[in-house]
Amino acid sequence: MSFSVAVAGASGYAGGEALRLLLGHPEARIGTLTAHANAGSALGEHHPHLRALADRVLQPTSAETLAGHDVVVLGLPHGASGEIAAQLDPGTIVLDLGADHRLTDAGAWAQFYGGDHAGSWPYGLPELLHAGETTATAQRAALVGATRIAVPGCNVTAVTLGLQPGIAAGVIEPGDLVAVLANGYSGAGKTLKPHLLASEALGSAQPYAVGGTHRHIPEIEQNLQVAGAGAVTISFTPTLVPMARGILATATARLVPGTSAAAVRAAWEAAYADEPFVHLLPVLPGGALQWPTTAATLGSNTALVQVVVDERAGRVVTVTAIDNLVKGTAGGALQSLNLALGLPETLGLTMNGVSP
Amino acid sequence: MSFSVAVAGASGYAGGEALRLLLGHPEARIGTLTAHANAGSALGEHHPHLRALADRVLQPTSAETLAGHDVVVLGLPHGASGEIAAQLDPGTIVLDLGADHRLTDAGAWAQFYGGDHAGSWPYGLPELLHAGETTATAQRAALVGATRIAVPGCNVTAVTLGLQPGIAAGVIEPGDLVAVLANGYSGAGKTLKPHLLASEALGSAQPYAVGGTHRHIPEIEQNLQVAGAGAVTISFTPTLVPMARGILATATARLVPGTSAAAVRAAWEAAYADEPFVHLLPVLPGGALQWPTTAATLGSNTALVQVVVDERAGRVVTVTAIDNLVKGTAGGALQSLNLALGLPETLGLTMNGVSP
Amino acid sequence: MSFSVAVAGASGYAGGEALRLLLGHPEARIGTLTAHANAGSALGEHHPHLRALADRVLQPTSAETLAGHDVVVLGLPHGASGEIAAQLDPGTIVLDLGADHRLTDAGAWAQFYGGDHAGSWPYGLPELLHAGETTATAQRAALVGATRIAVPGCNVTAVTLGLQPGIAAGVIEPGDLVAVLANGYSGAGKTLKPHLLASEALGSAQPYAVGGTHRHIPEIEQNLQVAGAGAVTISFTPTLVPMARGILATATARLVPGTSAAAVRAAWEAAYADEPFVHLLPVLPGGALQWPTTAATLGSNTALVQVVVDERAGRVVTVTAIDNLVKGTAGGALQSLNLALGLPETLGLTMNGVSP
Amino acid sequence: MSFSVAVAGASGYAGGEALRLLLGHPEARIGTLTAHANAGSALGEHHPHLRALADRVLQPTSAETLAGHDVVVLGLPHGASGEIAAQLDPGTIVLDLGADHRLTDAGAWAQFYGGDHAGSWPYGLPELLHAGETTATAQRAALVGATRIAVPGCNVTAVTLGLQPGIAAGVIEPGDLVAVLANGYSGAGKTLKPHLLASEALGSAQPYAVGGTHRHIPEIEQNLQVAGAGAVTISFTPTLVPMARGILATATARLVPGTSAAAVRAAWEAAYADEPFVHLLPVLPGGALQWPTTAATLGSNTALVQVVVDERAGRVVTVTAIDNLVKGTAGGALQSLNLALGLPETLGLTMNGVSP
Repeated sequence: MSFSVAVAGASGYAGGEALRLLLGHPEARIGTLTAHANAGSALGEHHPHLRALADRVLQPTSAETLAGHDVVVLGLPHGASGEIAAQLDPGTIVLDLGADHRLTDAGAWAQFYGGDHAGSWPYGLPELLHAGETTATAQRAALVGATRIAVPGCNVTAVTLGLQPGIAAGVIEPGDLVAVLANGYSGAGKTLKPHLLASEALGSAQPYAVGGTHRHIPEIEQNLQVAGAGAVTISFTPTLVPMARGILATATARLVPGTSAAAVRAAWEAAYADEPFVHLLPVLPGGALQWPTTAATLGSNTALVQVVVDERAGRVVTVTAIDNLVKGTAGGALQSLNLALGLPETLGLTMNGVSP
Repeated sequence: MSFSVAVAGASGYAGGEALRLLLGHPEARIGTLTAHANAGSALGEHHPHLRALADRVLQPTSAETLAGHDVVVLGLPHGASGEIAAQLDPGTIVLDLGADHRLTDAGAWAQFYGGDHAGSWPYGLPELLHAGETTATAQRAALVGATRIAVPGCNVTAVTLGLQPGIAAGVIEPGDLVAVLANGYSGAGKTLKPHLLASEALGSAQPYAVGGTHRHIPEIEQNLQVAGAGAVTISFTPTLVPMARGILATATARLVPGTSAAAVRAAWEAAYADEPFVHLLPVLPGGALQWPTTAATLGSNTALVQVVVDERAGRVVTVTAIDNLVKGTAGGALQSLNLALGLPETLGLTMNGVSP
Repeated sequence: MSFSVAVAGASGYAGGEALRLLLGHPEARIGTLTAHANAGSALGEHHPHLRALADRVLQPTSAETLAGHDVVVLGLPHGASGEIAAQLDPGTIVLDLGADHRLTDAGAWAQFYGGDHAGSWPYGLPELLHAGETTATAQRAALVGATRIAVPGCNVTAVTLGLQPGIAAGVIEPGDLVAVLANGYSGAGKTLKPHLLASEALGSAQPYAVGGTHRHIPEIEQNLQVAGAGAVTISFTPTLVPMARGILATATARLVPGTSAAAVRAAWEAAYADEPFVHLLPVLPGGALQWPTTAATLGSNTALVQVVVDERAGRVVTVTAIDNLVKGTAGGALQSLNLALGLPETLGLTMNGVSP
Repeated sequence: MSFSVAVAGASGYAGGEALRLLLGHPEARIGTLTAHANAGSALGEHHPHLRALADRVLQPTSAETLAGHDVVVLGLPHGASGEIAAQLDPGTIVLDLGADHRLTDAGAWAQFYGGDHAGSWPYGLPELLHAGETTATAQRAALVGATRIAVPGCNVTAVTLGLQPGIAAGVIEPGDLVAVLANGYSGAGKTLKPHLLASEALGSAQPYAVGGTHRHIPEIEQNLQVAGAGAVTISFTPTLVPMARGILATATARLVPGTSAAAVRAAWEAAYADEPFVHLLPVLPGGALQWPTTAATLGSNTALVQVVVDERAGRVVTVTAIDNLVKGTAGGALQSLNLALGLPETLGLTMNGVSP
């Protein structure tokens, strides 16, 4: 059940993390690595942490260099993956880490991304609840045997996992969601922009894409509609904080009037009791809730979730922590790939983070 | 117009910051410094950055050691300042950096703090809008000549400054506010707790006091009621992020239906156009908004504010950045003290941050 | 070839990291976990990142609770492991992550640690060169079949790996070494001390144990003597910098007069050409040297090394990066354990770091 | 005694810090601000922390735009300031924050910088000891009335202040110095380079300019020769660590044989006993030395110094902390400017840092 895999955009953060995880996957044979501006150089110049591949030379990104593999991982800017993917063999499993094939609604694509919609692919979030489900089976079924997989956005994964149990169980209202995220800088990629300099980041917190403009908004709404919501509206604000990795998503929703705190907790417990990578944190001895931290998820494919009812405010508050490059990108991709290939879903992935 | 000042709790972060600012105040003569467990040691052991006071020996905290000064600054745990303050001369100006005298409602005190309510003092937020005001004059008037001043909580200052223009102008609804904050660690004080260790903090984000339990909640509600709101409810979630100082508060409210984006911006512009320390950031050439960063406020008494309407979500989103120890604590205290003493409000305070 | 393993001190950073790595080791069956003050609580309260063991309850640390395993890992304060180890079955493989059994010289023990010397055990640094070797074989031989292993100090590992090729090859002088290290905070453990608070660490660098007092000094000298030095003296200064993990060790030695830069590079190349976990970084296209960063080693068992001759200063300068908790502690321990058990030396360990 | 001042390179970090300090100087009237690529934009876009100047528009950098001021501060890349300065009125006081006029030896310039040597100016380190001095008076005398001042390099200031008392007193040997520095990222400026991205910096330490190539080397040697050394050689290694500001310089020298620890301490005490901005930290009650931290110097013009003898290694170890942008750049410049103008040396400068 061994498979060969090529990675496009290998010198970027998403491509590099895909390689790190593939190096730990017992069935993966890493083939061609490609890059755009960095083609011709050794991978070790860009990812000195990937010792096992340090001497590999990057090829130019094209359908030709990527051909001939069982699996192709695309870590490309949005807009670029659609064109390449169209030229790859239909039997090749293509994992798109970018945004091109996530949205089902061409109108939402046009509004948030602009340009032509590349069409949607099976969506690589195995834990996505469908309306009426208490545990996620339909999305997993959609991924088995898939040859094209759209890997979710990192913020989307965090917010969806935080809120969907309440949507699916009908205990929170989808009409006035608010999410504010603390984000590590690797989510912004390697682009050289002044606000991404270390001097600007260290000791500071800064928001971006405030006010309903972030491209992950329609994708969150789409997911929660799959989970059973009717009209969804979400106020979504990411903030960069001084860490390299991690997303801590605080997402709140109005409690459906008359719902007990026990019913709320039961919804989250039911949704994630059997999930290998999504863990509702426990009530500690003494009665306090244990809350997620991003450090506890570093390098792992785990999402840590906690939920509480704020009776005074009439809101359910959820906090979800993930590693944006693992569960938020490359780990979620491998998990979906395992399903596509008929391998055990957790193969080659760890639930244990690197901490402190 | 020179005044003598004693600082209780001088070895803590709030007390230390008060001293740093007093050292830069042209009229302050620094007198007795007191501490609890650290009494008997030199200030330089606890605050090596306060070079000018390094050799000062800390006295025990008591009404006796604090007596005989024109001004006393109390940087004490809540519950401790009420008792001390009651023993100080009524003519002495007492600035309480702690919570004991902030809340006017004894019931809210009992619910969030427990124990007996020490009673409320004039509230040290000069920029606090009162109902019907477009610029803050009533609160300033309340501070002129005051001899007891309750300095606001740091998170309270950030959220109040972010939201109050919209409340006072009637363009946002007070009934379903949501605030999520990125907080530097100095806000948690010097207490030795495992989750405050550098190893746990570095590379991580972690929430605390989630779900309507944080003690700053009733104080925010109280302020917004002063600004003209009827019933206020706020979902409030602080998160610790890896920086020593700073608060970045993202606070949202439902837009009053039918309100234009221009009317929203006009409300914030009117409120802060003449404020020396609260600045609405501009629209940049090209049309993008400039957003606050905490680094830009480091060491200064400035609050940076920005506001935008998210039409899709039906919410106004505000982001406010402050230095929790300056505008959020000791700087706000000195600003109020200047008013109490009849000095220029900005004397000895800077609006310019230390950055990068 | 499966083995059972108990971990003492499981709630500490070293014990936790041993568990993280053991969870990824294909032959390890994790048995009893013990703690001192934290006995009785669940591991998940202390290490929320170790999801697979979150519900495990910690036992008290004693010879009885640790008995009956093939392997025991001791993550205890120095002084404690000697007593426990003496009571464990002689056939049990005991890995001491602490200092008790590292030094062969009782006088050095008395001078730097005080108290009775527990005696030395086979030293768990497989890559340690012995006099006359160009590649490390003698130390590996000493570990095969060992039932007691003293795991090196983290700083010691970094400095030894940086300097030993030059000592063994006779191209640097051992008489006036200088090492200055940038250290992450996890090396200081979980002890609650003021200077380890996040507020003190963030945005700051601070030295400790300056002036020849650090306990790792005699251990470095011992290693370099094994590598062929006569009298060794080293000026050694660690500095805490704001990162959770990692050591960047800058270690310099006087160049033996008349030695060419090529001969220096050849010594380091020969020493590490075949090492799975110690990598001399390359000369980049264009001629610049690639230098180690600690981030590139995070979570991996890799040491990255670079060396250059400063002709003007007459010194060889080496820089070595490791993850203090992996190659510097628990990873080095597992590597040695693999040798002791006759397993492949790299089994269950990765050379690829988690970055960015 | 009021003076007008123009700042060239105002959108960079050095220029911005000069402006921050000038805003706090009671005699400074800030005139023209210039930039290169950023000319035409408002200062607030680049330095949102400088609230008082946020609306100032940047002019192009030229002798014409800078003309007509009493003082001109040049925060330009090396090579650029020489040309501009030559066109400015001889009576204007010109402070060059760059390197062009620091070195007296044209050969050293050619070797480390290349190109033509612009010639040397009076050197802006008032505390620089001259041979035979125990306290610095000659350098101060050289600055009184000066109209051209070369502001020292930041690393140079830290290392010089650490080592010069021992050189001047003849208790350390200048022949085999070793300095390793932990550096904040602002020292690297605002240039967009991959290794300066936050994602690369956070959680990592990385060296640069290793092996005798850093341009600050000849400047350190020059200073220590002024202090009385004959031939100086120094091995100098800076390392970037995750903080925005600060230099922690660990600098060691061989102890002159037969020198007592008391004589060493006496040399440092004598040198800095009366210095307003250079403080030898004390021996704490109990006998331990207090060591510098960079956080304690943040935003201040203070250098904190400590020294100890390592008898075992035969070396004196010094640690010096400064804020690279203040004492290391703009603060040192203003201190020298005060001397040049005949103002009190400390006017408008603070010795108290912003901490935590």
